[in-house]
Amino acid sequence: MIYLDNAATTPVNPAALQAAWPWLTSEFGNPSSTHELGNRAAVALADARSRVAKFFNVRDSEIIFTSGGTESDNLAIIGLALQNPRGKHIVSARTEHEAVLAAIEFLERTHGFETTWVELNEFGQVVNFESALRPDTTLVSLMIANNEIGTVHDVASLAAATHKVGALFHTDAVQAVGWFDLDIKKLGVDALSISGHKFGAPKGSGVLVLRSGARTEPLIHGGGQENGLRSGTENVAWAVAVATAIDALAPSAAEAERVTKLRDEFIGAVLSKVPHAKLTGHPTNRSPNIASFTLQGVSGEAVLLELERRGVIVSSGSACAAGSDEPSHVLLALGLEPELAQTSVRFSFSHESSAEDLATAAAAIGDSVSQFL
Amino acid sequence: MIYLDNAATTPVNPAALQAAWPWLTSEFGNPSSTHELGNRAAVALADARSRVAKFFNVRDSEIIFTSGGTESDNLAIIGLALQNPRGKHIVSARTEHEAVLAAIEFLERTHGFETTWVELNEFGQVVNFESALRPDTTLVSLMIANNEIGTVHDVASLAAATHKVGALFHTDAVQAVGWFDLDIKKLGVDALSISGHKFGAPKGSGVLVLRSGARTEPLIHGGGQENGLRSGTENVAWAVAVATAIDALAPSAAEAERVTKLRDEFIGAVLSKVPHAKLTGHPTNRSPNIASFTLQGVSGEAVLLELERRGVIVSSGSACAAGSDEPSHVLLALGLEPELAQTSVRFSFSHESSAEDLATAAAAIGDSVSQFL
Repeated sequence: MIYLDNAATTPVNPAALQAAWPWLTSEFGNPSSTHELGNRAAVALADARSRVAKFFNVRDSEIIFTSGGTESDNLAIIGLALQNPRGKHIVSARTEHEAVLAAIEFLERTHGFETTWVELNEFGQVVNFESALRPDTTLVSLMIANNEIGTVHDVASLAAATHKVGALFHTDAVQAVGWFDLDIKKLGVDALSISGHKFGAPKGSGVLVLRSGARTEPLIHGGGQENGLRSGTENVAWAVAVATAIDALAPSAAEAERVTKLRDEFIGAVLSKVPHAKLTGHPTNRSPNIASFTLQGVSGEAVLLELERRGVIVSSGSACAAGSDEPSHVLLALGLEPELAQTSVRFSFSHESSAEDLATAAAAIGDSVSQFL
Repeated sequence: MIYLDNAATTPVNPAALQAAWPWLTSEFGNPSSTHELGNRAAVALADARSRVAKFFNVRDSEIIFTSGGTESDNLAIIGLALQNPRGKHIVSARTEHEAVLAAIEFLERTHGFETTWVELNEFGQVVNFESALRPDTTLVSLMIANNEIGTVHDVASLAAATHKVGALFHTDAVQAVGWFDLDIKKLGVDALSISGHKFGAPKGSGVLVLRSGARTEPLIHGGGQENGLRSGTENVAWAVAVATAIDALAPSAAEAERVTKLRDEFIGAVLSKVPHAKLTGHPTNRSPNIASFTLQGVSGEAVLLELERRGVIVSSGSACAAGSDEPSHVLLALGLEPELAQTSVRFSFSHESSAEDLATAAAAIGDSVSQFL
């Protein structure tokens, strides 16, 4: 099996699971308990927090462990918008993840917020950003790398422009971990969301990096864990797994370069082998790990099945809209017709992906599509 | 080590971890993915849901997997209150868990809700319940068994009285799993919260049982997983672990009787051995697994350390208020002076607890307290 659906979910890094193991077995204490069993859990949690903080170049107190990327996005967007009422105006993009879109829709529906959707070019890049900002803009949320088409936003300059008008900036970095430099001080963002299961930690783990000073209303209230911002007994094992998976990431720059090269060879092979295949997203300013295409004239779903018969596991786009067979909202936002959007196929690579795997995958998609033409 | 802090957290049942294992290793698919790896995860999730639904005697669609008891309490209370605006009045008790109290405080602070705190007797039992209900009461939240003092509420009759005035009833059943019959139809509640790590499933797992027809605003918005009420990629492994831990529970009635007998012998032994020890909560109408005392004249924390030196692990009360050394809000709500409340020690048993363990623990607390008198 050649698994190229890493943007949907990654296998758990065995080192992360191994590091988590004691905290699922003998060391089962509640970190809030005052006895030794509890103390040891609290120390492990603090150590995990510290390692994650180092990765993002923030203080330990700026790391909030959550249950995943969707929770992190919701906590950032709803929490920041409700506690920083400069005005009830939000800026975001129609190509953001469902978690971002739905959190914003909640603010519109129940709290009277208004949203300006930034202008996007055919590649999904933001254009005329400043024109979207208003004196009453409270929050901007724009992702680092798109989960379906891979297009990258220049978050550092978008955040700088946002701060000029006095608003806060959140970025969904779920697809960026391991591929981009996520030093918060370089990015200049106020909040950043990640999801463990996109980089080798287990499902049910996530982090919100929240700069201190950014006032936030919690979603989940109670005993005051996670600096009062996310109550509930801490999932120590998954915090340790997240820290271990982060530590195991290859240095981003070199690995990003390696996979970018593979990606571009792969894109070239697909475009040459597959009639009517068209790359979606920007040709070069895209995440190293995503290559996505429309395949005019054939059904994306049918091609997926043919690929799977050939041992190549991919998806038609986001797996994050449960049970949905609607055309991708991202491709529609770029102006594609629904019929064309439904021909899309996304290949998403990992740090394990090799040139051989991608050559096999390119051949397989050529063969698969030829079944239908 | 004799671990008697099971109300804070339990060890993970090895069978639950073993059942979860494939979903953390080879079977890592995203249940929303359409390929076989995803399908198998979706089937495992559906099977887990079905087993949990059977335990509560509800439909599969009435089971919402969450990240824990605190999230379940928040989703029930905030979600139901915001979507069922009969009025902005809530009824609850000062002895509820912090998750319930803080969720209500959020509704008061940000949505103008008003709360009537029910009258409690010295044991923490509800008295004059009907007088707390009003024509504008939207929601009542009262737990089955108290996590600190063990006192049991007659939830079935409280829920029936609540329904008479047309309000909804939520119960925090976090401490009740494995000790009480949680057939929702017998309880007659609209929503019921549980936390995995209190009954042998891992930290980071939980369930909200929500009767269909109870309209609920989600806390976490996005791809629409969990029937639209809790978005985010599902933690398949922990859903399987929850189902397995639930299946592994001994039949409640016989096991509750066994542990109740041990508990009463233990209470008798402590009251006879330890000068000034006084049981907190109701003498008989209490959860099988909790025996809690005040120890007038000595420091609860100091006794805990002495007990730990003797290999008996207990706590002074709830571990759920992170890092707090405040006196228990539960004991204060029963009218105890703060000084007396700070002498409290809670023993909480499990299905593994034996007569020998409890005899050892009773001797140990006698010896421990004698150090200070």
